[in-house]
Amino acid sequence: MIRTKIRSALHTSQPGETIKVCGWVRTRRDSKCGFSFVELNDGSCMSNLQIVIDQNVPDYEKLIKDVSTGSSLSVTGKVIESPGKNQRIELHAESFYLYGTADPETYPLQKKRHSFEFLREIAHLRPRTNTFGAITRVRNEAATAIHRFFQSRGFVYIQTPIITTSDCEGAGEMFQVTTLNLNRLAQVQTEIDFSQDFFGKAASLTVSGQLEAEIFATSIGECYTFGPTFRAENSNTTRHLAEFWMIEPEMPFYDLQDNMALAESFVRTVIGDVLKNCAEDMEFFNQRIDKTTLETLRNITENEFIRIPYTEAIEIVKSSGKKFDFPIEWGSDMQSEHERFLTEEHFKQPVIVYNYPKTIKPFYMRCNDDGKTVCAMDVLVPGVGEIIGGSQREERYDILIDRMKEGGLNPEEYWWYTDLRKYGTVPHSGFGLGFERLIQLITSMTNIRDCIPFPRTPKNAEF
Amino acid sequence: MIRTKIRSALHTSQPGETIKVCGWVRTRRDSKCGFSFVELNDGSCMSNLQIVIDQNVPDYEKLIKDVSTGSSLSVTGKVIESPGKNQRIELHAESFYLYGTADPETYPLQKKRHSFEFLREIAHLRPRTNTFGAITRVRNEAATAIHRFFQSRGFVYIQTPIITTSDCEGAGEMFQVTTLNLNRLAQVQTEIDFSQDFFGKAASLTVSGQLEAEIFATSIGECYTFGPTFRAENSNTTRHLAEFWMIEPEMPFYDLQDNMALAESFVRTVIGDVLKNCAEDMEFFNQRIDKTTLETLRNITENEFIRIPYTEAIEIVKSSGKKFDFPIEWGSDMQSEHERFLTEEHFKQPVIVYNYPKTIKPFYMRCNDDGKTVCAMDVLVPGVGEIIGGSQREERYDILIDRMKEGGLNPEEYWWYTDLRKYGTVPHSGFGLGFERLIQLITSMTNIRDCIPFPRTPKNAEF
Repeated sequence: MIRTKIRSALHTSQPGETIKVCGWVRTRRDSKCGFSFVELNDGSCMSNLQIVIDQNVPDYEKLIKDVSTGSSLSVTGKVIESPGKNQRIELHAESFYLYGTADPETYPLQKKRHSFEFLREIAHLRPRTNTFGAITRVRNEAATAIHRFFQSRGFVYIQTPIITTSDCEGAGEMFQVTTLNLNRLAQVQTEIDFSQDFFGKAASLTVSGQLEAEIFATSIGECYTFGPTFRAENSNTTRHLAEFWMIEPEMPFYDLQDNMALAESFVRTVIGDVLKNCAEDMEFFNQRIDKTTLETLRNITENEFIRIPYTEAIEIVKSSGKKFDFPIEWGSDMQSEHERFLTEEHFKQPVIVYNYPKTIKPFYMRCNDDGKTVCAMDVLVPGVGEIIGGSQREERYDILIDRMKEGGLNPEEYWWYTDLRKYGTVPHSGFGLGFERLIQLITSMTNIRDCIPFPRTPKNAEF
Repeated sequence: MIRTKIRSALHTSQPGETIKVCGWVRTRRDSKCGFSFVELNDGSCMSNLQIVIDQNVPDYEKLIKDVSTGSSLSVTGKVIESPGKNQRIELHAESFYLYGTADPETYPLQKKRHSFEFLREIAHLRPRTNTFGAITRVRNEAATAIHRFFQSRGFVYIQTPIITTSDCEGAGEMFQVTTLNLNRLAQVQTEIDFSQDFFGKAASLTVSGQLEAEIFATSIGECYTFGPTFRAENSNTTRHLAEFWMIEPEMPFYDLQDNMALAESFVRTVIGDVLKNCAEDMEFFNQRIDKTTLETLRNITENEFIRIPYTEAIEIVKSSGKKFDFPIEWGSDMQSEHERFLTEEHFKQPVIVYNYPKTIKPFYMRCNDDGKTVCAMDVLVPGVGEIIGGSQREERYDILIDRMKEGGLNPEEYWWYTDLRKYGTVPHSGFGLGFERLIQLITSMTNIRDCIPFPRTPKNAEF
């Protein structure tokens, strides 16, 4: 008999039908009248299916004591209208099979609530909890919504390289990748000869696929990356991971206005899809993690984003009369507290700040005619602050070269990147979004380590 | 005016409409009668749009000489029914703007045909060629079809870690990941202290996400990975990359038969979707790369896959009377020549070989009752041979531990993996497919380095 998933059973199975379900026991309660209630979950949805196993079901006496939290079952039985008010149907077992037990003495996931810190230590079992089941389903829906958003607009999904021999953005510290025998290195006193290394030169893990994405934007058209990126920063915060997934769309013939419009549409569509397609899980986050979750997200999906130039944003922050930990002046980078003031207190809705001072932005952002600012944009949303950073790219060869030199970069190392401006250059734009930051925003989870299956942070790469 | 993509213009724009297109010039021909023909491509499809620019169009005299191969244009004009027989419509320019030139003296992509070897050296420009434009679009469609296949069946997309501290499969050599100062290491004569390294122990790049995927299969249900994996093997062949993308589905409550059925359906669906949705690009591969491309792929999508046990496959190969480079006996691994004989010559259609000797397969594959074989399967297809490898997983704790010890592995290092068997174990299965091998099969490209945007191979990690 073919397995029915519990999600499907709960939604569409009709009383009288015989079905087979498989899953993991969340709880068992024994009635004094010779039967047991089993709550079974198979990960297809948050809800459990309530199963009644009667003492007359074969093997009841022999097996029921081992049907404990965490054990795995298959159950065949009849769907019955549930007398309880919490569920539409339940299943009356006609037979069951115990795949595997879970010794209550040692199984770490007992019925009580566990701290997220503890669950991180058993990341191999935490997807069996309500919270991490929901996060996993939301991650899946968000990833799917992202692909759907871009594919429906004719964007091409590209895979940019993970191992790279150029520190392309200068965007932070990188992990080295090598096949050199480190122990032998440490024993012979010498200069390292990277020509003997796997790639013939020093190699690292990528911090961004943007520069490579520009290659495709200027040949194949609108495109996007969705892949892992890395930062070897010793940041032990609730918002940093050493390994995280990024989405980086890149679009030819888009100016900054087009870029902002796409970013807004992107954020609103993806969050809207999750709200619609993961309603049960989102209800859970709203009830159990943060009671403002749904309100915050609806604020994002239902309001047009404010767009203001950086210069104006700084004026608003300065004239607010509010005390900030960090002073702010035109020319300085906005801190999280300023960004959150703008989006959460002043405008009370998402804000896109654009035209930042060029001194605080990377070389590849397009210079404005004022000589002071570049076509940068940051999308700020209530709840987390900055969620997207992007820009129109500098497509003018000479200006790009000058900017590189100003930034202390050697244009020759970027020969292929500058070639894109030398041959058939076009205006183009793009932005980047950290996937786990998005998941953090959507789920209201406090720590980003709970928004990725297996977090990599300083001193931690377990599993 | 909003840009119309050339794909859309060619398919749906009607004579009389005024549209704006943007793209890169493939060729320009000047007529003696005072106008020029420009073939414009924007990457949205293989075909160019033919544009007629008349000498009366503003700036014609000034700019037309710079409208050379590789330069970038925007053109606004009127759609005209084409008198030529190769296209439905053409565009008569009313105005045009030259974004960027491409000096014919130095632009490497001139009209002539270039070798794939040469194009690999200019991987930043090769997506502007017909072949690599087509590969990029096919890759996108294949990736999208893969997500669609799994999502429509309720599978959950998971991201397994890239950086790992365990050599999980023992499946080949790994790249080390470190933030230790290698030069300093090489200068002080000492033992390496990995507790000082970023993750507090030696770390590497993953070779497979399977073991982590099993965590989700045994909690959340059917799931799949789609991410980069790495092999630090010094293999300079047309079929090996140091960095490649893998798809690894993992399904609870699936036995080997279910696994084979899913793998077959997967291959046929994904290839079928590419044939349908990339018809123009596939026609190109069939004409220009290999005239048997479409026939080979239709053989796969239109035929049910043969399923035979390894023992029987060996008998067929041995009794074929055919001379092979490698001798074959029961118990030895099949070489590519044997696999291709089976699928290309003997059966002339795709074949799934299953129940391999346990001595040649990894510890995690489920032992059959015969004591000699395991529930492994390989999918072999004409054209490339093995395209998928998979198995039912060993879900019995004691047998798994024994198999690890037999293989010289320390079960304690796999504590979280064995926990999945200790607590609520269930039968489950999965398989893996190398994405670039699939692209190689679909496009008939001889060298896998042409099937990924930026190949990483020994001594090469450019771009």
